Amino acid sequence: MKRVIIASTSTLYNGGYLEYLKPTLTDFFKDVKQLIFVPFARPGGISHDEYTEKVAGFFADLNIAVKGLHEFENKIEAIENAQAIFTGGGNTFVLVSMLYKFNLLDAIQNAVENGTPYLGSSAGSNICGLTMGTTNDMPIMYPPNFRTLGLVSFNLNPHYLDPIEGSTHMGETRETRIKEFHHYNPQSVLGLREGSWLEVLGDKITLKGELPARLFQQGKEPIELETGSDLSELK
Amino acid sequence: MKRVIIASTSTLYNGGYLEYLKPTLTDFFKDVKQLIFVPFARPGGISHDEYTEKVAGFFADLNIAVKGLHEFENKIEAIENAQAIFTGGGNTFVLVSMLYKFNLLDAIQNAVENGTPYLGSSAGSNICGLTMGTTNDMPIMYPPNFRTLGLVSFNLNPHYLDPIEGSTHMGETRETRIKEFHHYNPQSVLGLREGSWLEVLGDKITLKGELPARLFQQGKEPIELETGSDLSELK
Repeated sequence: MKRVIIASTSTLYNGGYLEYLKPTLTDFFKDVKQLIFVPFARPGGISHDEYTEKVAGFFADLNIAVKGLHEFENKIEAIENAQAIFTGGGNTFVLVSMLYKFNLLDAIQNAVENGTPYLGSSAGSNICGLTMGTTNDMPIMYPPNFRTLGLVSFNLNPHYLDPIEGSTHMGETRETRIKEFHHYNPQSVLGLREGSWLEVLGDKITLKGELPARLFQQGKEPIELETGSDLSELK
Repeated sequence: MKRVIIASTSTLYNGGYLEYLKPTLTDFFKDVKQLIFVPFARPGGISHDEYTEKVAGFFADLNIAVKGLHEFENKIEAIENAQAIFTGGGNTFVLVSMLYKFNLLDAIQNAVENGTPYLGSSAGSNICGLTMGTTNDMPIMYPPNFRTLGLVSFNLNPHYLDPIEGSTHMGETRETRIKEFHHYNPQSVLGLREGSWLEVLGDKITLKGELPARLFQQGKEPIELETGSDLSELK
């Protein structure tokens, strides 16, 4: 059975790394002894080793050993044999470029379809959608394609940000950007606020966390979805 | 002689469209009777016609007639024959996709090198740099390449935004994003705050407007540049 957690962010303001997800992940990964970490998004340009070490620190508390995918010569085989996969945040353009370079998209898709539990945060969540076309990241690398894993049949906007009241900045709001996306792309976009996540169990997709999420559909006004909402039919 | 104005934004908070640039543009375009407008970035998804009409409204006051580039069957010829070119803001990914689709990058480059005055704002400024790799826009369309006009030998970040004091949002600051860019790309990046612009006259590049700009160079700490700074040697 497909088992996926798609988190808006790894870290909440004033919180520790993955801290708010600890109870959820303890349960989600309860039979897992070793996890493959995909460090390619490199937040702040951190090295693959440093990033993996940070993640290993968190999972040590859950008695889960962490191996960075970059350590494996045969990365496809590492994904095929993984007990669990976690893709961390950073820059989505860099992450997707690397996934294409190592031919990993199909391998991850297949592993997840076959029941390997997958956790994504931020950029690692972006790639769970149909395309990376609703990332907030800067295009610092040119990927061969914007198509991503399609673990859900819509797009994600992690770190969803409401318009800032009283702002005098003239750059587009997040909502305007997503509306522009819908001029060229049909799929729905789920704006996940920091602290929210999606739980995918088989065909069932549920909004979790304390906050509502904002749903954007082509040709419709955006709506707020309460936590607990069932998104299984969303396209 | 090359003559270019690269503006951070078309509009200041509480200001009219291009209003703050009116004295500058009156002088810059003083021998121009007709201007070709490139409307492809479509801010908020506005149509090419509507966008061109908005721009024509501003330039009517300067006694300059505006024709949208979309109206021409032979767009390359239209650029070659243009008295002046203005590329408006919107989504940089859409703009660059269209410029490649119609094979316009070389045509605009050549026209500008041959002395056709060029005005860019926001997305229209982004494309004046070596690549579009430091745009703030959402990747809602997949362009065949990130390479852009290279009218200056560095990259631009229009709508440059300082970190928001007291923000609890965990998405990357603009500064962090540009630092990540420098992990993979060597060229300098100029963060142009709203209200600033660059004036390019031949080989001379000058920072204009009331605000300082923020300069990011690979392997160095960012620095503030006062208005009036000479950027002719920047790479």
